[in-house]
Amino acid sequence: MTQIKPLASQTTPRFADIATFFRLPIIKDLNKLDYCICGIPWDGGTTNRPGARHGPREIRNASSLIRTYHPSSLKSPYDKFQIADIGDCPINPVDLEDSIKKVTKFYNKIVESKTIPLSIGGDHLVSLPILRALAKDKPVGMIQFDSHSDTWDTYFGGFKYTHGTPFRRAIEENLIDPKKYVIVGLRGGLYDPDDLTWAIEQGITIISTDKFYEIGIEETIKIIKNTLGDTSTYFTFDIDGIDPTFAPGTGTPEVGGITVREAQLFIRKLNSLNFIGADVVEVSPPFDINNMTSLVGATIAFEILCTITKTN
Amino acid sequence: MTQIKPLASQTTPRFADIATFFRLPIIKDLNKLDYCICGIPWDGGTTNRPGARHGPREIRNASSLIRTYHPSSLKSPYDKFQIADIGDCPINPVDLEDSIKKVTKFYNKIVESKTIPLSIGGDHLVSLPILRALAKDKPVGMIQFDSHSDTWDTYFGGFKYTHGTPFRRAIEENLIDPKKYVIVGLRGGLYDPDDLTWAIEQGITIISTDKFYEIGIEETIKIIKNTLGDTSTYFTFDIDGIDPTFAPGTGTPEVGGITVREAQLFIRKLNSLNFIGADVVEVSPPFDINNMTSLVGATIAFEILCTITKTN
Amino acid sequence: MTQIKPLASQTTPRFADIATFFRLPIIKDLNKLDYCICGIPWDGGTTNRPGARHGPREIRNASSLIRTYHPSSLKSPYDKFQIADIGDCPINPVDLEDSIKKVTKFYNKIVESKTIPLSIGGDHLVSLPILRALAKDKPVGMIQFDSHSDTWDTYFGGFKYTHGTPFRRAIEENLIDPKKYVIVGLRGGLYDPDDLTWAIEQGITIISTDKFYEIGIEETIKIIKNTLGDTSTYFTFDIDGIDPTFAPGTGTPEVGGITVREAQLFIRKLNSLNFIGADVVEVSPPFDINNMTSLVGATIAFEILCTITKTN
Amino acid sequence: MTQIKPLASQTTPRFADIATFFRLPIIKDLNKLDYCICGIPWDGGTTNRPGARHGPREIRNASSLIRTYHPSSLKSPYDKFQIADIGDCPINPVDLEDSIKKVTKFYNKIVESKTIPLSIGGDHLVSLPILRALAKDKPVGMIQFDSHSDTWDTYFGGFKYTHGTPFRRAIEENLIDPKKYVIVGLRGGLYDPDDLTWAIEQGITIISTDKFYEIGIEETIKIIKNTLGDTSTYFTFDIDGIDPTFAPGTGTPEVGGITVREAQLFIRKLNSLNFIGADVVEVSPPFDINNMTSLVGATIAFEILCTITKTN
Amino acid sequence: MTQIKPLASQTTPRFADIATFFRLPIIKDLNKLDYCICGIPWDGGTTNRPGARHGPREIRNASSLIRTYHPSSLKSPYDKFQIADIGDCPINPVDLEDSIKKVTKFYNKIVESKTIPLSIGGDHLVSLPILRALAKDKPVGMIQFDSHSDTWDTYFGGFKYTHGTPFRRAIEENLIDPKKYVIVGLRGGLYDPDDLTWAIEQGITIISTDKFYEIGIEETIKIIKNTLGDTSTYFTFDIDGIDPTFAPGTGTPEVGGITVREAQLFIRKLNSLNFIGADVVEVSPPFDINNMTSLVGATIAFEILCTITKTN
Amino acid sequence: MTQIKPLASQTTPRFADIATFFRLPIIKDLNKLDYCICGIPWDGGTTNRPGARHGPREIRNASSLIRTYHPSSLKSPYDKFQIADIGDCPINPVDLEDSIKKVTKFYNKIVESKTIPLSIGGDHLVSLPILRALAKDKPVGMIQFDSHSDTWDTYFGGFKYTHGTPFRRAIEENLIDPKKYVIVGLRGGLYDPDDLTWAIEQGITIISTDKFYEIGIEETIKIIKNTLGDTSTYFTFDIDGIDPTFAPGTGTPEVGGITVREAQLFIRKLNSLNFIGADVVEVSPPFDINNMTSLVGATIAFEILCTITKTN
Repeated sequence: MTQIKPLASQTTPRFADIATFFRLPIIKDLNKLDYCICGIPWDGGTTNRPGARHGPREIRNASSLIRTYHPSSLKSPYDKFQIADIGDCPINPVDLEDSIKKVTKFYNKIVESKTIPLSIGGDHLVSLPILRALAKDKPVGMIQFDSHSDTWDTYFGGFKYTHGTPFRRAIEENLIDPKKYVIVGLRGGLYDPDDLTWAIEQGITIISTDKFYEIGIEETIKIIKNTLGDTSTYFTFDIDGIDPTFAPGTGTPEVGGITVREAQLFIRKLNSLNFIGADVVEVSPPFDINNMTSLVGATIAFEILCTITKTN
Repeated sequence: MTQIKPLASQTTPRFADIATFFRLPIIKDLNKLDYCICGIPWDGGTTNRPGARHGPREIRNASSLIRTYHPSSLKSPYDKFQIADIGDCPINPVDLEDSIKKVTKFYNKIVESKTIPLSIGGDHLVSLPILRALAKDKPVGMIQFDSHSDTWDTYFGGFKYTHGTPFRRAIEENLIDPKKYVIVGLRGGLYDPDDLTWAIEQGITIISTDKFYEIGIEETIKIIKNTLGDTSTYFTFDIDGIDPTFAPGTGTPEVGGITVREAQLFIRKLNSLNFIGADVVEVSPPFDINNMTSLVGATIAFEILCTITKTN
Repeated sequence: MTQIKPLASQTTPRFADIATFFRLPIIKDLNKLDYCICGIPWDGGTTNRPGARHGPREIRNASSLIRTYHPSSLKSPYDKFQIADIGDCPINPVDLEDSIKKVTKFYNKIVESKTIPLSIGGDHLVSLPILRALAKDKPVGMIQFDSHSDTWDTYFGGFKYTHGTPFRRAIEENLIDPKKYVIVGLRGGLYDPDDLTWAIEQGITIISTDKFYEIGIEETIKIIKNTLGDTSTYFTFDIDGIDPTFAPGTGTPEVGGITVREAQLFIRKLNSLNFIGADVVEVSPPFDINNMTSLVGATIAFEILCTITKTN
Repeated sequence: MTQIKPLASQTTPRFADIATFFRLPIIKDLNKLDYCICGIPWDGGTTNRPGARHGPREIRNASSLIRTYHPSSLKSPYDKFQIADIGDCPINPVDLEDSIKKVTKFYNKIVESKTIPLSIGGDHLVSLPILRALAKDKPVGMIQFDSHSDTWDTYFGGFKYTHGTPFRRAIEENLIDPKKYVIVGLRGGLYDPDDLTWAIEQGITIISTDKFYEIGIEETIKIIKNTLGDTSTYFTFDIDGIDPTFAPGTGTPEVGGITVREAQLFIRKLNSLNFIGADVVEVSPPFDINNMTSLVGATIAFEILCTITKTN
Repeated sequence: MTQIKPLASQTTPRFADIATFFRLPIIKDLNKLDYCICGIPWDGGTTNRPGARHGPREIRNASSLIRTYHPSSLKSPYDKFQIADIGDCPINPVDLEDSIKKVTKFYNKIVESKTIPLSIGGDHLVSLPILRALAKDKPVGMIQFDSHSDTWDTYFGGFKYTHGTPFRRAIEENLIDPKKYVIVGLRGGLYDPDDLTWAIEQGITIISTDKFYEIGIEETIKIIKNTLGDTSTYFTFDIDGIDPTFAPGTGTPEVGGITVREAQLFIRKLNSLNFIGADVVEVSPPFDINNMTSLVGATIAFEILCTITKTN
Repeated sequence: MTQIKPLASQTTPRFADIATFFRLPIIKDLNKLDYCICGIPWDGGTTNRPGARHGPREIRNASSLIRTYHPSSLKSPYDKFQIADIGDCPINPVDLEDSIKKVTKFYNKIVESKTIPLSIGGDHLVSLPILRALAKDKPVGMIQFDSHSDTWDTYFGGFKYTHGTPFRRAIEENLIDPKKYVIVGLRGGLYDPDDLTWAIEQGITIISTDKFYEIGIEETIKIIKNTLGDTSTYFTFDIDGIDPTFAPGTGTPEVGGITVREAQLFIRKLNSLNFIGADVVEVSPPFDINNMTSLVGATIAFEILCTITKTN
């Protein structure tokens, strides 16, 4: 098979033609692919400001601005692997349980094909059904970039599935090994002083935004590498880990966050880890400004693609 | 009890102090009220663009611009009745069924207190649980201003509850008498040529936007009065019945609609009917522009308040 | 002296060079001019949403889109008269009384030079000091296009000067002859049922938006001509007389108004009257959307310029 | 071959998956198609505000909201004909002449395949190279909906190709028969009183916005039918013919225009004519507000599709 | 009395119900409160872009996103003190002197009740009448975070009261002890090289943005502590001290400023000082983008609340 | 001749009167000037998102906020030199070659008058015709602040003139000495791994954004000074060198960039070099948000003016 390539911007200008992720072709036959990029247009787990269902559409649109070679390595993932946009995962905007089942079913097929998925959300609850597919045999390690831990128990009188609870569920279901789970970027007020107790008791490693700035990026990376080693690891990137000035289009903004550049450097330095999948979530276009958050989301997705393909 | 009045704008400027509906006080004791204004901040039935959950908050904000005397009648509902903002109805952003139950439960109390509710949505599915409370003893008549009939059967593989289905459910549940049900404003393409068959077979009277302009407002009103007579009638106003240029902040815009002014005249002329409640739904602030749709929503709500209190 | 002309758009594109009213040169020597266009960047009389102080700047910017020949008459005011942008009138953003004095002083000079001013506001209170200059010898007739009468007595505990009171003051000061005063476009709720009593008692002719649509534009014009005859007349155009969908950038929007096209036709049909000056007020750029209200303001100003120069 | 259909919105929600025109598949083999929808992302002829190059992308995005059956006829073009999105025509953003050649070359192939094109611009100069392909054998009739005639001679010192000149060129090149050419919607000031002379001298029928409102839509249609009969006719729809309040995202807005609804009715009534192609041009997303102009553009394009396929 | 608490976000979602500061109840009886949060919706001292009068309304709206426990200390001010939203202070939008008197009168009552006020402006001139109440017995110390010193003498020909002059007046009136007055964040060009002379001659300590970055936050805090000791101190926070990218909604933006995160750290480190009151001013919603500045203002206000209650 | 000064903001408020660069007068007689500020409203070389043609207009508008004395030096360029806004350079929006010629012709006159130009673009291709005038006798040194090198060869099938190619052309034409050419700020993906080869082979010194943060600003400046010495040097500042969060209104945003404050410090430290001219390019108002990029552009232009006049 010939090498799959994005549409060339010096032939077809970047504003022209259909918007797909990184101008890649749409290919639905997973067997042709090493890596796939998949949208999950669903925000049914959102407790406050909705709109992340529109994330994949607008990130595709913005990703026309992303070029093919990584600026540090001067390498391209498209030279080394077969990568395509596989379209969106089926979901149900009016039923939470049906949506979760549909996502797991779809990702089971991705797992069967041995294609590694980079998923574009959607709210953070989408990571749970993805993990049910990717970690169905044994728990995985995880790196979460996020301003919230999303490990709360229940909302609104006992409801267990929201975008604030996926990783508590994932640990309960033995999908994530909490000893091999690092969260980077926590900040913002808490509902309760015990908010973090459960997470810490499970053994999760938390590097808050404050701590990130205190110890620096190199030390942060060292902690992550020591914690994860060569474990099969999932990488979940919540756009609200980035300061909302840089990424306003998100449901639960927390000011005082990490800059896009720091996030880029952070992602690049993870490229020795053993990633089995990744997602970028919580980009909410209705709250965005001039599609800037979609552009940040697209850039972050490309950085992650280079990291998981070790081409940066 | 003294007469409840909105905050006076020539003492406290309109941008000052807490935003409540029409600057009325918040009063939670329903027994003190003849009419109540209630927010239902929920959009869990939305099949496309979400955000109507933010409607009550922003309509409260915009309603500071609305004055107290109706421009045609020079009368004020606040001179004649005790009316207050009762806050928001409890809902659950992550569970459709729980939300529907919560709304009915809350409106059952309103019905018991004999207070007449003007509800501010929320997506159009909120009308169903309201009707379950208001029409629990016998079916009611209905006027629906809307660009869509919202009488579709199921979505996404058999799901029965969405903002496209409430009135099919209401007829099935015998909450609305379809012979006493008039829809005004339908327009826009259809998913299927049979889209309207079911509605017409039930006996619903449909006055499309095309027909509205063809027969004129007076004839439209005549048809409504002939159909409804003095039946206990519910009035549901979907903001997308208005042209989206005038009201862009809505989930399912259909261009080519009725103007705000025509909608105002339409509402005013209904004031001889026997209303037992009303709602304004589908204002979606994340898709709004400079809060103009919230201002239209607030103005429409005031017109409806004057119509149901016969003060216009 | 050579004929003063706007910058030619087919030589210098419309986005190029300095933004002046209609791309006219800035000429400060009033003796060279038959008509002058003057900004009054002041909003100190505003009781709710401010920003009209930015009106002249943005109307200048938008007016680059306006061409030189009127589409109905195929005539141009610049062929017949010497017309220029004279810059902005001095004002004081932190002192109401000082501002009012400065405006009258500046317009006294315009009156002395026998130049006819078209003024671009600013909030509606600016019309009062203009009238103090233009009508200092005897009361003038007036046409006011507006959704509010601006004839209220006092605000906030006896304060007499706001953008809601200028024409009550003008009548008290004998600047306007109320028998020769027509207001077109009133609508929106009232603070008090007596809101209009004073105005009517003075003899002001009021054609509300409702009445305008009921009697039509021709009858409206007939009433105006019968009322004003050949009286020296001032024309004040509050942008909020237009529906806020068409002109959202204003401080006190009232939905359900007159369209831009109807306003244009209305202005054109007044061209047999005897105008001694005119203004366009209450364009508030901070509340505008993509400068559309400034473009409406510029177009209206050009229509008025053609009407007062009888070139349409 | 099976009937080509848009993606079903009740299976795949409208915000999901790749944005194509009307959710149709991308099919590049013209021989499979009766009608094709083609983007022309180019604005190199623009004399003032650019951005129409982004039109096709955003109209595709907005067109997800358009359903499949026309509301008046209850018929669908997709039931009767094979119709698909064929992607974008090649263009060159930095060279006007090269772009014009590329467009003609691409449309020559469409003409050869006997597929009827509905083109989505792009600025109005794109109609010239389309006509060079469609009318290469003999001049065609034309209906132009527009606030400007675009028949000016030269700009900026003798330059003959801009979005203000295509139809002067087309008449000079014998592509349009001026006796069978009707322009509807002209309004706005003029650069010169002779602006319209050339057009009228050629025999073009002009129905200005003023005249449109004066004679009404039925009379307008009658004039068009009398003029065009069964001539092979091209339909060019400049979005600025619509009032900019309804369609702000355009390069040369002229306030006081025709409403979207009137434009829809106008298009529907043309369905007895003999159309050989059509375009919708001058949608400029960078000047749009919340993508409303793109939605208007998509709705107009669907109306035109139904008119040229006689399914409305 | 029971402990006053904000509305719980896991029962009532954050978008639901009335917008008050931090979702606290409105309590007007000052005797029940240790600390009060008060809006001052006034911008009559503004010399350039107005709109800060809308600040309290929108900061209330945005503050629904702020949770109850501080992320560093895991403590909550609401556990330790009785704190409520007391509504807005009376003001007069059309009279500067009347407004200043009204504010002082209102704050005199707060001082009498021994409640410590956190005020939400309004433009910076509101700090003067607050200080007239809080410092009426003896001059206080002050920390000002601001990009301008606001110690200019007069504007527009001798006018002494603008948002550029409050602290010159406060020193002249012996309300602030200039030896115990530190300004942090100055930057941006000057009207005059002598701009800072007066301030320095009085003994004010100025740490410009340049110096802040040069000496670092720890050294900045040390200087402040050395200067203020345990003096009764007022804290005034002008949002324009923050870089306008992070806080665009303000009247006089100066690019190149301090980040939100740095401002948060700065505030936290002041918690050993002896604060008698604080304000957050110059948030101007009409110039804001998606309410981000209001969210920054709300977050800063919460940080200040934690600092003055020593719960961070 | 008297010293030319900007309009005083404490007499004429900053929102008042005509918008010129820094409120300077328009003076077209170059012989009266030491330095001139000139707009070049042209974006015909833009390969993706257009709109930079609107840059000069909006930077003039925003520059009213810039004061006269530099905050570090407390000096003003207007005290030392005769400086004015000379209006816009003639260009042609529909012809690339004609525009390039017009710019060179205009700048030849500036060179003849020995006035030093600060140019406000326009897309980056405008620097080429400027250099053809300024460097016509011998090649100059250059400092380029930019996220792209703009040294690509051809686009779209051999087209040599775009905003991505000016400096390859300038080197080929011997206008720039590549040994005395430093680019600061490169980042973002590449079209090709050889993207930078040509540039490096010519001897251009490249300090990428990564390297800038690695070596620091002092070392960056040292490299520049060592490279340029006292060579006659041109300074070209592409606004996209700054992070797009701070400057979103640009055609080709690259996230992860340098902050405005860092750019300001960078510019200030260059003030010992020997500048013969400078430009600020690629501000694209249609993609801007609340004119923030225009304000950044105006602030940067003032910093550059102070650097080239050695008044900072």
